[in-house]
Amino acid sequence: MTPTCAPATTIQSRFVDEFGGGGSADGVPRAGVGGGGDAERLARVGLGRVIEPGDLAALKVFEGVGVVEMWERLRRQEVGTERWVTRMAKVEPERDLERAAAVGARFVIPGDDEWPEQVEVLAEAGQLSRRAGVPFGLWVRGPAHLRQVLEQSVAIVGARACSSYGSHVAGELAAGLSGKGYAVVSGGAYGIDAAAHRGALSIGGVTVAVLACGVDKSYPRSNSALFSRIVEQGLVVSELSPGCSPSKLRFLARNRLIAAASQGTLIVEAAVRSGALNSAGWAEQCGRPVMAVPGPITSRMSEGSHLLIRERDAVLVTDVPEIIEAVSPLGTGLTSYRHSPKTPFDELSHELRRTLDAVPVQTPAPTHRIATTAGLDLPTTQDALEALTALNLVHQSATGWCLTRQPG
Amino acid sequence: MTPTCAPATTIQSRFVDEFGGGGSADGVPRAGVGGGGDAERLARVGLGRVIEPGDLAALKVFEGVGVVEMWERLRRQEVGTERWVTRMAKVEPERDLERAAAVGARFVIPGDDEWPEQVEVLAEAGQLSRRAGVPFGLWVRGPAHLRQVLEQSVAIVGARACSSYGSHVAGELAAGLSGKGYAVVSGGAYGIDAAAHRGALSIGGVTVAVLACGVDKSYPRSNSALFSRIVEQGLVVSELSPGCSPSKLRFLARNRLIAAASQGTLIVEAAVRSGALNSAGWAEQCGRPVMAVPGPITSRMSEGSHLLIRERDAVLVTDVPEIIEAVSPLGTGLTSYRHSPKTPFDELSHELRRTLDAVPVQTPAPTHRIATTAGLDLPTTQDALEALTALNLVHQSATGWCLTRQPG
Repeated sequence: MTPTCAPATTIQSRFVDEFGGGGSADGVPRAGVGGGGDAERLARVGLGRVIEPGDLAALKVFEGVGVVEMWERLRRQEVGTERWVTRMAKVEPERDLERAAAVGARFVIPGDDEWPEQVEVLAEAGQLSRRAGVPFGLWVRGPAHLRQVLEQSVAIVGARACSSYGSHVAGELAAGLSGKGYAVVSGGAYGIDAAAHRGALSIGGVTVAVLACGVDKSYPRSNSALFSRIVEQGLVVSELSPGCSPSKLRFLARNRLIAAASQGTLIVEAAVRSGALNSAGWAEQCGRPVMAVPGPITSRMSEGSHLLIRERDAVLVTDVPEIIEAVSPLGTGLTSYRHSPKTPFDELSHELRRTLDAVPVQTPAPTHRIATTAGLDLPTTQDALEALTALNLVHQSATGWCLTRQPG
Repeated sequence: MTPTCAPATTIQSRFVDEFGGGGSADGVPRAGVGGGGDAERLARVGLGRVIEPGDLAALKVFEGVGVVEMWERLRRQEVGTERWVTRMAKVEPERDLERAAAVGARFVIPGDDEWPEQVEVLAEAGQLSRRAGVPFGLWVRGPAHLRQVLEQSVAIVGARACSSYGSHVAGELAAGLSGKGYAVVSGGAYGIDAAAHRGALSIGGVTVAVLACGVDKSYPRSNSALFSRIVEQGLVVSELSPGCSPSKLRFLARNRLIAAASQGTLIVEAAVRSGALNSAGWAEQCGRPVMAVPGPITSRMSEGSHLLIRERDAVLVTDVPEIIEAVSPLGTGLTSYRHSPKTPFDELSHELRRTLDAVPVQTPAPTHRIATTAGLDLPTTQDALEALTALNLVHQSATGWCLTRQPG
């Protein structure tokens, strides 16, 4: 797909809300008052505007430095690469907050009641990958409470160019998880992501779209109606400042946030190289379970899922209870071992079972032959055969007994 | 299915060859001369006729006793349950051998060149399950050399009531394994078994049908044309004497033989309760790899495969190289890590890649903005953008650069 290239604008001028509707500021939680006061909040807004998610240079330069001090040093130009300096010239944190409020977005930071502490795992994951790092804050739109919602949440991600199987399965599992009180987190992309969001919405569940652009932007554009539904019923979240456009770096950084924010990441369909596998890698790094839905081996779209199960110890899951088991603490949320429905065979006594096992499939045998094979005496065998006849498991003809159903 | 009950006959009278055609005695390997002489061969024929496969009582009574001695004790009625005594009255090993030869069948015993020693693993597996035990000998029909064929062989088994997906996959994998010189072992049942046999036959490969009845019997009947093709091109094998009919006990015993005879067992499709899962259990007990083909989670027929992968450490396999890797000794037969076809992205230099990652997806950005995001100087960025344009990865409009393809 070749996107049409719309006229460029500066980052500050892009506060036109691109969502198709909804998302008014009414009834929306406000940023909590617990979070470090105005200075810290403004510093975090500014830092989020200047420093790209997971910027390794920033992580190094500011190691051990508080955010307010970081922000002061940047403002005084005591530190900084060319790219930070260029951006500093245009940053106005107060206006960012005002403009965000105008589209119903709030900025959630550590210490706020809504802050999801689990994303701080990214401080450690940063040791492993150059794109880690804890977000300075999260821009949030929608009526749900970010922390509470994410406390019981599963990420469902996968291919944009998914099959109808993948889209069906993503929707069903998302709806099923919603029904069990889990929020469904995804990336708002075409395909599996959209199917997962829609599945949750379809039963009135809460879904969280984590974007690789500002929360006032709609990417992909044609999902704008979906985003406006999510804003009414769940949450749209991004660490990128309002107005920011997506780039590949930002998609990859977004994937880390999805993995860190949810209790586990489920890949429904993915090609062997795909953003979904990147998400799985982040979940591993964050110590979150990685799950994958199998599919036909004839489908390229299931190759990534199968690879994860084969090579990277992802848990194969086929239904909602298995997903809940995987994301629950060890020994809790266990699903029962799967059995097919009970059959009459399950209830048979030892003698009945031995007799049944000795009855021929095809060519009838007389009672004494069955007794011989079963190792039972004749009266016992005779009684057993009559009981089995009553259960319609064996069948008597003029020449002897054979099975009613064919085993194999 | 309710089989019609044909008139009963005694075990000795059933030497009518039920196969649709083929299977003449011409050009068929003869029983080797290495195997313990006539006395042992006749003893083994007789024991196979009297003692059911995996008869635990026999295993106990005759522990540490040679087969010739076992046979003598039975003949002298020094030992024996009622069931053995009843059968002893009718056993004529010489006539069994003659009648088998008349339909082109031979009896292979330990010491014969064709004897597949790996089935002796069942002597140990017997400690774990009451239906184990090494066959006294194997009735074999067909031109192939049993031992040589089984040395490189994979069992492919599964549901009788399989889906078209399962049947397709079983056939394709069987054909692929045949093409790599592997014999395909299965049980001759409807569904997955038949598809596996046919897949091997379709490319002129060797396939081995291990039956739960005599090698002159065709069960299921409607597979008789398939069996006669297998007898021409591969092998039909059974530990049951000619004329024996299948029973559930014999199906279960047959499964142990398939598992022990092959290098590994692949389950293509299976319901949660099925003979295929019994086969997998036997393969585990015999120390052979268990493999399973995933499928749609919406298909009941894949539930058994998924259960094996989730709960019993079966190896998820999706193609022939992965199967060969699983059945090969550790560190050999490795398949290459699966990647999708190389893309232009793979070949990019560090600068090109950094630049590309910084180009917006949708809204064009001018060169200096991209340089800022990428952390590169302007001339380097300009050069990189031109190189990326030549590769058709980025696209320049009046207002700046954006990606040609949308990542996600």
